[in-house]
Amino acid sequence: MQAAEIAKLVGGDVLGDPSRVISGVRKIEEAGEGDISFIANPKYLRFHDGTQASALLVNREFETTRKDLVYIKTDDPYLAFLLVLRTFMPPAIRPEPGVHPTAVIASDVVLGANVSIGPHVVVGARSVIGDGVVIQSNTVLGEDVMVGRDTVIFPNVTLYHQTRVGERVTIHAGAVIGADGFGFLPRGTSEGWEKIPQTGIVVVEDDVEIGANVTIDRATLGETRIEQGVKLDNLVHIAHNVVLGRHTVIAAQAGISGSARIGERNMIAGQVGIVGHIDTVPDVIIEAQSGVSKSIRKAGRYFGHPVKEHAQALRQEGALRQLPDLLRDIRDMQRRIAQLEAALGVDAKE
Amino acid sequence: MQAAEIAKLVGGDVLGDPSRVISGVRKIEEAGEGDISFIANPKYLRFHDGTQASALLVNREFETTRKDLVYIKTDDPYLAFLLVLRTFMPPAIRPEPGVHPTAVIASDVVLGANVSIGPHVVVGARSVIGDGVVIQSNTVLGEDVMVGRDTVIFPNVTLYHQTRVGERVTIHAGAVIGADGFGFLPRGTSEGWEKIPQTGIVVVEDDVEIGANVTIDRATLGETRIEQGVKLDNLVHIAHNVVLGRHTVIAAQAGISGSARIGERNMIAGQVGIVGHIDTVPDVIIEAQSGVSKSIRKAGRYFGHPVKEHAQALRQEGALRQLPDLLRDIRDMQRRIAQLEAALGVDAKE
Amino acid sequence: MQAAEIAKLVGGDVLGDPSRVISGVRKIEEAGEGDISFIANPKYLRFHDGTQASALLVNREFETTRKDLVYIKTDDPYLAFLLVLRTFMPPAIRPEPGVHPTAVIASDVVLGANVSIGPHVVVGARSVIGDGVVIQSNTVLGEDVMVGRDTVIFPNVTLYHQTRVGERVTIHAGAVIGADGFGFLPRGTSEGWEKIPQTGIVVVEDDVEIGANVTIDRATLGETRIEQGVKLDNLVHIAHNVVLGRHTVIAAQAGISGSARIGERNMIAGQVGIVGHIDTVPDVIIEAQSGVSKSIRKAGRYFGHPVKEHAQALRQEGALRQLPDLLRDIRDMQRRIAQLEAALGVDAKE
Repeated sequence: MQAAEIAKLVGGDVLGDPSRVISGVRKIEEAGEGDISFIANPKYLRFHDGTQASALLVNREFETTRKDLVYIKTDDPYLAFLLVLRTFMPPAIRPEPGVHPTAVIASDVVLGANVSIGPHVVVGARSVIGDGVVIQSNTVLGEDVMVGRDTVIFPNVTLYHQTRVGERVTIHAGAVIGADGFGFLPRGTSEGWEKIPQTGIVVVEDDVEIGANVTIDRATLGETRIEQGVKLDNLVHIAHNVVLGRHTVIAAQAGISGSARIGERNMIAGQVGIVGHIDTVPDVIIEAQSGVSKSIRKAGRYFGHPVKEHAQALRQEGALRQLPDLLRDIRDMQRRIAQLEAALGVDAKE
Repeated sequence: MQAAEIAKLVGGDVLGDPSRVISGVRKIEEAGEGDISFIANPKYLRFHDGTQASALLVNREFETTRKDLVYIKTDDPYLAFLLVLRTFMPPAIRPEPGVHPTAVIASDVVLGANVSIGPHVVVGARSVIGDGVVIQSNTVLGEDVMVGRDTVIFPNVTLYHQTRVGERVTIHAGAVIGADGFGFLPRGTSEGWEKIPQTGIVVVEDDVEIGANVTIDRATLGETRIEQGVKLDNLVHIAHNVVLGRHTVIAAQAGISGSARIGERNMIAGQVGIVGHIDTVPDVIIEAQSGVSKSIRKAGRYFGHPVKEHAQALRQEGALRQLPDLLRDIRDMQRRIAQLEAALGVDAKE
Repeated sequence: MQAAEIAKLVGGDVLGDPSRVISGVRKIEEAGEGDISFIANPKYLRFHDGTQASALLVNREFETTRKDLVYIKTDDPYLAFLLVLRTFMPPAIRPEPGVHPTAVIASDVVLGANVSIGPHVVVGARSVIGDGVVIQSNTVLGEDVMVGRDTVIFPNVTLYHQTRVGERVTIHAGAVIGADGFGFLPRGTSEGWEKIPQTGIVVVEDDVEIGANVTIDRATLGETRIEQGVKLDNLVHIAHNVVLGRHTVIAAQAGISGSARIGERNMIAGQVGIVGHIDTVPDVIIEAQSGVSKSIRKAGRYFGHPVKEHAQALRQEGALRQLPDLLRDIRDMQRRIAQLEAALGVDAKE
């Protein structure tokens, strides 16, 4: 592919030889002869002078200093890079349609057109599988499960009975959706715990992506709901009756406790914990390892244990760093006050 | 079911029309015509005036202000609600007894009466499966595993060789019990790590519930033991040689390090971490995301990194919030002391 | 086995009856008649006087006070104990070589000599399995996977397409290697997220051990690389494009974000979080639950949120504990200064 063709693809302008042939796509620090790469983040500028790439996607204002490179200037070099990546990379291997003979599909399951079901998959009674769905090896769907069209489920996934999954959803290996919510009551009369029946379901809306070994529990009553476009990283835990608003993203190992309602477009970083029965408004950002113990009523950036608005958390963290020196200052001040009191004959005790 | 019948079931008293017909059970904020709901927690009082429910379970002291509602007064409205829930909800679907033809069961396995073994289950040599046990699709049991009567194991679970599971235990999908403890020694002579053989086992006592994708490691020597009635939420990690005391509950994503001994009836919240080789007494409560680095010798509520008694942690957190203002106060005091010293001709340096 | 034989095995010296017969190996607090145990850590000295063991491995300087015990003195009692443990314990049960008839192996897979493949295993097209590899029940390998000789993979593991695993690697149950990295871009024009294609791979080098339910994501471009001898505990998350240096160990539930490069021989404790795009030098130790938000340029011990050098973190934590008392001191000082100012007629406001 020539540089000029790539420029056309991404709506950009070529600086340098438009006929330079590009045969691969790599990160700037790894790119070599024939590769195209990109600089979107100033952080990567340090690789500019040394890169072996043949062409670079850069923004309109970029200072182009190397004569041996072909630059392609675009409004959004990263988006341009993705477009190029898609063009160069082969599409994901999609298994052939068909049901593997080792799969165990209940007789009353409804299978759509062009469904692909891998070896040792199990699908329970009355389940409905939409057109173009891919279910990979050793995944298990319980009774009364619904899976919308073009959804892809990777190996060793478990969808408990009655789980409803939308269209174009991706569920990575090892995820467990619809296990019982964690609900127990102390027994009144004897020792121990009484299990609260978990009779609700999980609903996963369209265009959701669910990471490896994620767990999403069914509701006690009603629904646990993962709204459209939500993205969950690996090992995330979503408790019973949680609602995750549209396009919210949650990074690895974060956990959302029971009945929390997370607003739209929240961004929740890794290892964050959110207590139960709280709400967040749309457009909240919560930084890594934070703990949210109250509802968040205002969009913005939050951090800490318990979370505070980012600016306040930084101020507190800065003060904390000064604390050991402060102790010294205070002991010094106490000495000086005592000295003054002695000089004046003032009695400190009141 | 009429209101009067429900009142009889829960040992309560009807206020309002005892013949009102109740056909469903829902949360107060979701309940509609014909539903019964409950208020146990004052937090839910705010839904009282607007609820569409036909009947409410409330406590004896509840102020009943709506004429259109039927109230049923009981000593414990939540427990009453659970009783009603069980009556209305169909029992969990229990698979038919029998061994699916695709299951691979070693020839010397002992199967109890009315056992249900799903598709693609694997059971290793010399294992013993009690009466009424359910093992769902694609679960794997190694050699010499014992499973007590009426235990239910969901799909894609792995029980390593020699694991012993008691009666009426529930193990949710994706859990892994009996993998090697994490034990390595630095090599003396060359680089790297020497693996410490993990030759112990895991014992899970009766009435335990284990969440989805939980991991419980086998002991280095001896046993990792989960005592009777323990409840573990999803993605909890229990290291080698840990003992969890009876009726202890552990919320999602908490981790207990090697050889820790947790007392009876502890309540450990989400994302808590507990270091190895420590003990806790019975009736300890540890709040979310806390870190426990020493033994806890006194029952009570703990919080923080490292954990402190709750009151002390709150006091410290309160002080921390004042810290940035404190810095300002201290700079102000230093100025004023210098001013006093100047006025008195006192030399601050000693 | 006689005490003298054990002493010879471990290069130690016998104090007491060299013909005492030893028939088992247990922890000091659990050992009984005929057992050998050890004391390496002074913490376990408290069990010395009461142990029922017949023999003890101790260090050269140990004060041997019990006449009824046989002591074996060695340079490293724990290493000696491991040697004895290996001698007494039967080797791990290795399944018979062969491919179980229920396994689904693509026709063009290359299988080495003495491979053991369990029930319901799936191996995708063009994969290459080395000599002596064990793949246990219900594990799934995608297309183009390579597994080096003598590697053992436990049940219900998923290796995505193109994953490369070295020799003598151990992968515990439920691990997922090669799922998509968590990469999404905000859509410019409409709402929601655009998925960044994850076209790289995961490379796991020789002698690595991977715990139960661990997740290691494939690279966006290039490789996620787990270098030789790395040990990962259960439920660890390794994001796309991470590099873990040789012999690094990571304890349970820790998470490493995208493109972080961890040096050799790092020791990362449980529930630690490391942000993306940072480096650590070799020989860094990070304590439990810490958060690493910047590169670490100096070997040593780190702790906190965000991490600090251990000594600094302890100093800060100590100061923090004094903070509530400090508040009282400061209020007291303010009062005394005001009193001095009044006595002197100095105006505090400037």
